[in-house]
Amino acid sequence: MKTPSSLEDLIGALRCLPGVGPKSAQRMAYHLLQRDREGAMHLAHSLSHAVESVKHCGKCNNFSEQEICSMCSSAQRESDLLCVVEMPADLLMMEQAQCYRGMYFVLMGRLSPLDGVGARELPLARLVSRAQELDCEVILATNFTVEGEATAHYLATLLKSQGIKVSRIARGLPVGGELEHVDSGTLAQAVFERREIAA
Amino acid sequence: MKTPSSLEDLIGALRCLPGVGPKSAQRMAYHLLQRDREGAMHLAHSLSHAVESVKHCGKCNNFSEQEICSMCSSAQRESDLLCVVEMPADLLMMEQAQCYRGMYFVLMGRLSPLDGVGARELPLARLVSRAQELDCEVILATNFTVEGEATAHYLATLLKSQGIKVSRIARGLPVGGELEHVDSGTLAQAVFERREIAA
Repeated sequence: MKTPSSLEDLIGALRCLPGVGPKSAQRMAYHLLQRDREGAMHLAHSLSHAVESVKHCGKCNNFSEQEICSMCSSAQRESDLLCVVEMPADLLMMEQAQCYRGMYFVLMGRLSPLDGVGARELPLARLVSRAQELDCEVILATNFTVEGEATAHYLATLLKSQGIKVSRIARGLPVGGELEHVDSGTLAQAVFERREIAA
Repeated sequence: MKTPSSLEDLIGALRCLPGVGPKSAQRMAYHLLQRDREGAMHLAHSLSHAVESVKHCGKCNNFSEQEICSMCSSAQRESDLLCVVEMPADLLMMEQAQCYRGMYFVLMGRLSPLDGVGARELPLARLVSRAQELDCEVILATNFTVEGEATAHYLATLLKSQGIKVSRIARGLPVGGELEHVDSGTLAQAVFERREIAA
């Protein structure tokens, strides 16, 4: 039995999605063709439209349909802080926390030699020139994973060599966290990075 | 911060894929736009092409680009057996097992009231007329899940009422299976459906 070539092609094309192997791709293709052809056509149009219209903001490097995104051109944002995050999803979380009114820079990745992402694959020159342009403190808000920490360390060295003030978001117990249930690494960091209580 | 509308639209469109929730859809969209725009365009074209060209074979109901698929029009297949399977993937497994040279009928689903799939949603009238046309034994090869079993039961009643000979593929221990490691349900069925050894 021969699978129709356009179906085989679709199964192959679906594998460009992260986390989708041959079995999932087959299941997705069957589902779309059997139950949701309208959804498939909508997906096809959304893909082409997004690829054509989504660029990177010239200032913060986030996804944007304009040259400069609405956040970077907003007069409401303070320009005395520049927060570096790995991905747009991290920026969204920062905004949801409503703790920050400064500017952002989105790396769109992290140093990850195993995935072939070195310093050259990240827009570091643009980050440095953006920080110099704003002449402000840079807050490193990469993840506290091995790769995120390595990225933060690398960025701190790079930015400080340019005379830029650099800080890192704090590690410690989560809000509402109990000592009994926290992992020992986090607890150790929380003790190590303890803060003096002002009199 | 506002996500670009074409990006939001893409994230929404990706959710038509089975098993893809909001977080996965976001991750997929970021991945495609950041790392694989070529793959995204290829996927868009494959989707439209497949939706336009993949139909159902008029005889076996499998996906096909022709009115009658290559298997149903092949002179190599025997027409004295009709095997009913749930999905094209099941048909592929049957073919890989190289145990069967007859015809197929693909239900493209199973009775599943919880998912809104009743007898009316399956092409049962076409199955009956195909079985009558071939005037042959029908082998029910739906899965041994609750839904597959219910489907087999329903089909058996339906087909036998039309005077059609019906059989079900056997349950029992898998080839190479050991009694010590098999689940008790399978072992009980294997005992219950034991076969007499001819002298």
